[in-house]
Amino acid sequence: MDAHPGLFLVIDGPDGAGKSTQCRRLAERIESAGRTVVRLRDPGDTALGERVRAAVLDPAVGDLDAVTEVLLYQAARRRLVVEKLRPALARGDVVVCDRWHYATQAYQGGGGGADAAVVRLTTKIATDGLEPRRAVLLDVDEAVAQRRLAARSNGAPLDRMERRGADFRRRVRTAFRSVFGADPDRFVLVNANDGEDEVAERVWHAFADLV
Amino acid sequence: MDAHPGLFLVIDGPDGAGKSTQCRRLAERIESAGRTVVRLRDPGDTALGERVRAAVLDPAVGDLDAVTEVLLYQAARRRLVVEKLRPALARGDVVVCDRWHYATQAYQGGGGGADAAVVRLTTKIATDGLEPRRAVLLDVDEAVAQRRLAARSNGAPLDRMERRGADFRRRVRTAFRSVFGADPDRFVLVNANDGEDEVAERVWHAFADLV
Repeated sequence: MDAHPGLFLVIDGPDGAGKSTQCRRLAERIESAGRTVVRLRDPGDTALGERVRAAVLDPAVGDLDAVTEVLLYQAARRRLVVEKLRPALARGDVVVCDRWHYATQAYQGGGGGADAAVVRLTTKIATDGLEPRRAVLLDVDEAVAQRRLAARSNGAPLDRMERRGADFRRRVRTAFRSVFGADPDRFVLVNANDGEDEVAERVWHAFADLV
Repeated sequence: MDAHPGLFLVIDGPDGAGKSTQCRRLAERIESAGRTVVRLRDPGDTALGERVRAAVLDPAVGDLDAVTEVLLYQAARRRLVVEKLRPALARGDVVVCDRWHYATQAYQGGGGGADAAVVRLTTKIATDGLEPRRAVLLDVDEAVAQRRLAARSNGAPLDRMERRGADFRRRVRTAFRSVFGADPDRFVLVNANDGEDEVAERVWHAFADLV
């Protein structure tokens, strides 16, 4: 499923790791090297994806079990693949994607307890096996992530994902590390505890040979 | 997965077959026999299900491919199982459900061309294998279904599902019949071309021995 002229790159990691900032900086750097970059966010960036994000965070919807969340996120992911990701790769663009199905493995699988086979099967259905050429995990200490989230929310109440307890976040982090320990050619772990500029350099270093 | 004291009954079939009317009448008849009945509608009847229905019909969301629709409907179905269906069956109630995963097989599979294995795998994930004790297919001629839909819409524009062409509807109907031809103890085909009262009698006859 990787037979396209584009380049598919992913940055993933727990909330508060700095993904959206680092995706923006990576995209700018690749653009300044002369390539056309499409930035995507999974789930989201399609009308369906935005509706799915809103549904999962809506208090009226209630607390969803992990399997329902898996199915919803895979629907949004499928839509992103069909509507944006495949067309961009077919054009030969570089795609920098904020999150991928690794987050489903980490949050709904590791954190929420959804069966690994359920995540794997639905991922295959949603993506037709499309994988990034390389993915970076922004690995961040719990205390740093919490400090960044608090600064970002500026006293506003945390959303349902962010409210989940320390034990949940620990399981998510462990799952992320386990996923990213699998294939050293595809997955790179980046220490994201330091300042934005230092982390941006590390992220660039992880992708530079492909651009 | 059928180890519960309740009774799970389904009425399914193409749009315009008269499902909601017949679900209401069946529920009334079972209630008059002294049992507690819960009427459900799949997808729908949960806050998440209503959001999924709205998303699929929203012009801003665009035309979804059949696999995305499968994943969305399975998410709504999973939520219905967790939030409403299992609790009702655990209480020992009779559940009369308007549609079940047979509609996904018929619409997204037969009509939309989604792979049968995709529908089967995601159904198992969404329902944990929970099946009705019996399900009735309201089988209706194309012309009758179109007349009923036109009368119901009263000149209002048809929604995206209803707008799909005659060939799509033919494939849906064929797929429904194929599903309901499988297991004569579970599935009953009811001719739904006649008046409401006659069809209600046939539906009652199909379920009466279980109540």
